[in-house]
Amino acid sequence: MTKAIGYAAQHSYSRLKPIVFERDDPTDSEVEIEVMFCGVCHSDIHQVKNEWSNTVYPCMPGHEVVGRVARVGGSVSKHAVGDLVGVGCMIDSCRVCEPCHAHEENYCEGPNSWLATYNGPMIPAKMAPGGINMYGRDNSYGGYSSSIVVSEDFVLKIPASLKPEVAAPILCAGVTTYSPMMHWGVKAGDKVGIVGFGGLGDMAAKIAKAMGAEVTLFTRTAEKLEEAKKLGVTAVLESDKKTMTSLANSFDFMLSTVPEKHDVNPFVKMLKRDSTLAIVGAIEPLPSENNQERVMHRKSVAGSLIGSIAETQAVLDFCAEHGIGPDIQVIPIQEINQAYARVIKGDARFRYVIDMATLKLDEEAA
Amino acid sequence: MTKAIGYAAQHSYSRLKPIVFERDDPTDSEVEIEVMFCGVCHSDIHQVKNEWSNTVYPCMPGHEVVGRVARVGGSVSKHAVGDLVGVGCMIDSCRVCEPCHAHEENYCEGPNSWLATYNGPMIPAKMAPGGINMYGRDNSYGGYSSSIVVSEDFVLKIPASLKPEVAAPILCAGVTTYSPMMHWGVKAGDKVGIVGFGGLGDMAAKIAKAMGAEVTLFTRTAEKLEEAKKLGVTAVLESDKKTMTSLANSFDFMLSTVPEKHDVNPFVKMLKRDSTLAIVGAIEPLPSENNQERVMHRKSVAGSLIGSIAETQAVLDFCAEHGIGPDIQVIPIQEINQAYARVIKGDARFRYVIDMATLKLDEEAA
Repeated sequence: MTKAIGYAAQHSYSRLKPIVFERDDPTDSEVEIEVMFCGVCHSDIHQVKNEWSNTVYPCMPGHEVVGRVARVGGSVSKHAVGDLVGVGCMIDSCRVCEPCHAHEENYCEGPNSWLATYNGPMIPAKMAPGGINMYGRDNSYGGYSSSIVVSEDFVLKIPASLKPEVAAPILCAGVTTYSPMMHWGVKAGDKVGIVGFGGLGDMAAKIAKAMGAEVTLFTRTAEKLEEAKKLGVTAVLESDKKTMTSLANSFDFMLSTVPEKHDVNPFVKMLKRDSTLAIVGAIEPLPSENNQERVMHRKSVAGSLIGSIAETQAVLDFCAEHGIGPDIQVIPIQEINQAYARVIKGDARFRYVIDMATLKLDEEAA
Repeated sequence: MTKAIGYAAQHSYSRLKPIVFERDDPTDSEVEIEVMFCGVCHSDIHQVKNEWSNTVYPCMPGHEVVGRVARVGGSVSKHAVGDLVGVGCMIDSCRVCEPCHAHEENYCEGPNSWLATYNGPMIPAKMAPGGINMYGRDNSYGGYSSSIVVSEDFVLKIPASLKPEVAAPILCAGVTTYSPMMHWGVKAGDKVGIVGFGGLGDMAAKIAKAMGAEVTLFTRTAEKLEEAKKLGVTAVLESDKKTMTSLANSFDFMLSTVPEKHDVNPFVKMLKRDSTLAIVGAIEPLPSENNQERVMHRKSVAGSLIGSIAETQAVLDFCAEHGIGPDIQVIPIQEINQAYARVIKGDARFRYVIDMATLKLDEEAA
């Protein structure tokens, strides 16, 4: 056991505060990482506030983690002490189901699905068949902490040309948008629409553009139109009904990154025949969908969940190769609660990344 | 012009009654067909009752038409006088858009989309860009009639081994279920779920089985469980929650044939990862969909609309080759209004087909 410190919420109505806790020593196949930076994802907020009704407290979020390897278990071969590495949304999976064998751990169909970097197994033991908890834990503490211990197979290599703080959001926001674009075959010359221009929309637009696609961003925030220009992509205000209508049947692929309930019908109309709108932000039921559009032009509405470990490595390498990354604001961890408030208001431009070096100052308070 | 007789509704609240009207003489590229049989599709009832708010009256339904070629235009090369032929849902399309070039006329994106066998252009002139009516007509009279005149390119050949009355429903119910199964690649060994066991469900189950799939039919009607056994497929009553739940994540493909608003969520749950539920029956908005299922297992909900001319010929040939066809009840046209009532009640087993030889008796009444 080693002493660690992190920021956690004790209840759904609590602010995040520092707590001292113990991390296990790395087993034979695990890696201990000293956390340098951790991105702030909208999911962190949903989870802290128990908006998916499955939060285990204390809740210590953080699944966009970058740091240096501090210790390795005896059989670890992929990573060495001192390496710059990353941890995304998953720290383990069942490893035996068909999706795991197909290297799609993000769709793990084991009794507890994959083990989330924070909040424990995706399917809690009480909901799993036979009440099995294959991971032996009901909670896991994420990257808003001084250190983290993870199986080497779920640790990513950060390319040398990426700044560690820039690499962090690629581990969730990057792969969550990259994975569906690869799955549905986005290619050079395609017209791609991105719904929502937050942390995921920012990454989605940059990745799609680097793939050679013609990108249109849809936002409800007039102030973000200028930001889109900086990216060199078209932006449309969702309230601009005339432009919205003119885009009927024009996109080869659309991605909805909106992290909450929203109406996808205006965007289903914009799909070309035989094309797909993939939803990656919202997991709640959405307003009733326009079935006529789906039937008349053989359109699909699909979902997609983060990405596999292989895809996470691929998107890190892709971003390094193309010189792209998220627009970030580095904050000290003491500002995390204010940062949450700004994310909820849609004021973030575009991803907050916590500088974990600031954590040490707080240690005595804990 | 030639004198014709058919059954039509004058208003949304009217019963079908005989009317005498004139059919154009076939142009150079058209074929005149003496109608022998016409299937009764649930769409006929929706259209007659103006349930899609687009009915042009008088409304003379019928798009499962089988008959003999009576006359041909000078340049007709595909069909000859005396041939047994069929007409499905379409009698023309714009022929210049990308889907038409790709031989997918059923997704025609011309100003009026395709020309329906009855009720005229899919997109009426008043709704088309520039108010264009490229077909020069606002209404078309379907197969509940003594004759029909159709462009040779939209006329199908009925294989010799199919009885004409059995072939009729294949022209709509057959191709509507065959097309999505081909598009989404149903193959031998796949587990295929069919939602709804009416005229479409009956054809869907037979076609999927002939493709080598393992078929499960879902119905709300206990009396239909026996019918499913006759087909040699599994049937599940939708109210049997235990069985419904046990089928989670088990189907490679699902097809919803229910011709009205219905909840697809129980069936989305039954899809395997990366699989699709295609809706072919309902075009209205459906109840809110469980987005979590789509996201967590990368599932899709899609639509599909009838099938192309090439697919219609293919399904006729497929049914002939495999010795399958719809279960039908042949009725005289004088019973059409009672047949509609039974279809609405779900009492049909499974497709009514009108024997058009009975029409002549009525001629004097018109």
